Amino acid sequence: MPKISHKGQHMPASPIRKLTPYADRAKLAGKKVYHLNIGQPDIETPAGMLEAIKNIDFKVWAYTPSEGTLSYRKKLTGYYNKLGYNITPENIIVTLGGSEAITIAMMACLDPGDEVIIPEPFYANYNGFACQGGIVVKPILSHIENGFALPAIAEFEQLITPKTKAIMICSPNNPTGYLYSKDELEALKALALKYDLYLFSDEAYREFCYDGRSFISPMHLDGINDNVIVVDTVSKRYSACGARLGCLITKNKHVIATGLKFAQARLSPGMVEQIAGEAAVDTPDSYFEAVNKEYTNRRNTIVSALNKMDGVFCPNPGGAFYVVAQLPIDNADKFCQWMLETFSHNNQTVMMAPATGFYSTHGAGHNEVRMAYVLNINDIESAMVCLDEALKVYPGRKVGSGQLAVGR
Amino acid sequence: MPKISHKGQHMPASPIRKLTPYADRAKLAGKKVYHLNIGQPDIETPAGMLEAIKNIDFKVWAYTPSEGTLSYRKKLTGYYNKLGYNITPENIIVTLGGSEAITIAMMACLDPGDEVIIPEPFYANYNGFACQGGIVVKPILSHIENGFALPAIAEFEQLITPKTKAIMICSPNNPTGYLYSKDELEALKALALKYDLYLFSDEAYREFCYDGRSFISPMHLDGINDNVIVVDTVSKRYSACGARLGCLITKNKHVIATGLKFAQARLSPGMVEQIAGEAAVDTPDSYFEAVNKEYTNRRNTIVSALNKMDGVFCPNPGGAFYVVAQLPIDNADKFCQWMLETFSHNNQTVMMAPATGFYSTHGAGHNEVRMAYVLNINDIESAMVCLDEALKVYPGRKVGSGQLAVGR
Repeated sequence: MPKISHKGQHMPASPIRKLTPYADRAKLAGKKVYHLNIGQPDIETPAGMLEAIKNIDFKVWAYTPSEGTLSYRKKLTGYYNKLGYNITPENIIVTLGGSEAITIAMMACLDPGDEVIIPEPFYANYNGFACQGGIVVKPILSHIENGFALPAIAEFEQLITPKTKAIMICSPNNPTGYLYSKDELEALKALALKYDLYLFSDEAYREFCYDGRSFISPMHLDGINDNVIVVDTVSKRYSACGARLGCLITKNKHVIATGLKFAQARLSPGMVEQIAGEAAVDTPDSYFEAVNKEYTNRRNTIVSALNKMDGVFCPNPGGAFYVVAQLPIDNADKFCQWMLETFSHNNQTVMMAPATGFYSTHGAGHNEVRMAYVLNINDIESAMVCLDEALKVYPGRKVGSGQLAVGR
Repeated sequence: MPKISHKGQHMPASPIRKLTPYADRAKLAGKKVYHLNIGQPDIETPAGMLEAIKNIDFKVWAYTPSEGTLSYRKKLTGYYNKLGYNITPENIIVTLGGSEAITIAMMACLDPGDEVIIPEPFYANYNGFACQGGIVVKPILSHIENGFALPAIAEFEQLITPKTKAIMICSPNNPTGYLYSKDELEALKALALKYDLYLFSDEAYREFCYDGRSFISPMHLDGINDNVIVVDTVSKRYSACGARLGCLITKNKHVIATGLKFAQARLSPGMVEQIAGEAAVDTPDSYFEAVNKEYTNRRNTIVSALNKMDGVFCPNPGGAFYVVAQLPIDNADKFCQWMLETFSHNNQTVMMAPATGFYSTHGAGHNEVRMAYVLNINDIESAMVCLDEALKVYPGRKVGSGQLAVGR
């Protein structure tokens, strides 16, 4: 039998999905499982987007241009310029989801062995995309104590080598929910310019900022046009994860020209999705206002419930729809599996993502879990009751060990 | 300004799409351009598929499982088993187009520096996908004289090194239209088993076999289950290129498990596409009979017209909807550009793909072009009149040079 590639062997399994077989078995056994493990919102997709699908009017489901239809890129340009990005349709390559925007950005800018610095915990699949391209992720620890704020710039500088080509950020952050401030972005800008680095900005959660705080993108900063590459998706903005429609945005013409070669190899983004994407841009502000109000309530509910539990700490994030919480446990992977395999409370349990999968540093996050507050308030409350009960009886409970009081 | 990656610099531009700016300018100047350059059929997508899109009935456009919905994989299993593949839904990973099936297969099986042998001319984007993974394509020349039949197995063996991990075939072939016989596939099977190689089978054009000939897949052969990986797409089968829906099929469990890790990193194939894909499997046989009759007529028209032209040779292919023709020209790239930039006949011209982009061997195919017969008979006839006139006046005309009589 021919062998699997080394790359294939080293490719990490998804920490978000790897416990799925245990959840399936729990459900088969009749347990109700609260899915806080995956960022699949229960929020309805805007009606206009779904109507656009139902109203398709073509006879041939054809390729579109590799960079996306001009009509959709014009519409997107309007959306981004309302945010102050000051772009043209030529600055956009439409992609098959945000995932493809990330892989195209990485391939256009980094060679095997090149390094990208990413504050951790970070979106686990960055590891997978880097692995695909033979790219080395250099993690830099952010800390739950200060809500996972940007690590000191001096720490970044210690990691920079001649192989360093890029810094990758995600704000509001998946998995921590942290929202970078203007000062933090200015500091990153100075660093990118000083060392001539790309600054990849994953903005999947741009619309989800709470407590009246504003989203700031590197696209809002002056003098850094050639360094900034935004990767974006409609998945979270419009609760349209199954659309697989994203884009890459940059004012760097060389990156666009190079990215287009990768886009041409895979021929085209989806045609129906781009039609729906055009309609999505017209989604009324009231949709986002209602969604943000709902998420704010959910965040308040989950953060408050968590911090009331004995030995649990959870910062209050400024955006996205995730929290990372520190639990009084020995091992998050074991705990999350135990929740599905062994534990139940009133025949219910909770599926969470062990935070270890969001760290590149071995051992980091061993007593942390990520939870996506994508369920309604009642379900979140029930899930929190479950978790509280579980923590009381979990055989690997460790109070005071690895907790804040004694450091990470 | 940060630098583009070497990979990005070396990534080849699409030979199918790189002349597009010239075509755009020709159209702006008022010329009618016959597009024989790209495999975008004018055939209507089956009505049932489009109806399925219009009848979507969900409120949240959600992720599906990374391997595709069970419901779609079951339906696909029925389709493939009718063809005699003898698979289960667990043998399938649903992908974002055939392109992604190829990249996942390559990543799961080949490391940077590993070699894949591909008879050339071959689908140009194989070069691009190989470049993305740092994989080395070892081309093996097939010849227009015998219609691009499989090269002798001894020639394959001469190319095999310890780095050789796979052979890639495409039958019916893009760009040549050649349809491999049972004997040719048995020879490839013996070779794959002898050297423990993967056999990647690109079957995008399975439905398009002419003159009563049957399609044969490596999946029909015994004793080679662990070696065969089929990559497939709905693009051509249902004239649904813009759907970006394909799949990878293999009975090798390790490849499925590894491929799934890459599939999980990009989260999910499209949800609406899978709904449409289910409906597509119910397309009546009458649809394919009508389509095949139409393509057979087109093929007969284009092949006959080409072979009547002075100094032109075109084999009569057994499948797909492409021909590669040898023309009395100095340089196919120059000629195809000249057709768009300079030539017109009754204010019309023809866009073709220079065959050089389908060869990896430098200089091969310099007097060949690929044409896709994806236009109606009248348009094909008009395009052939154009081409005939063009060849009479093309300044780089070379009669007898590089023609069959004097070899390639």
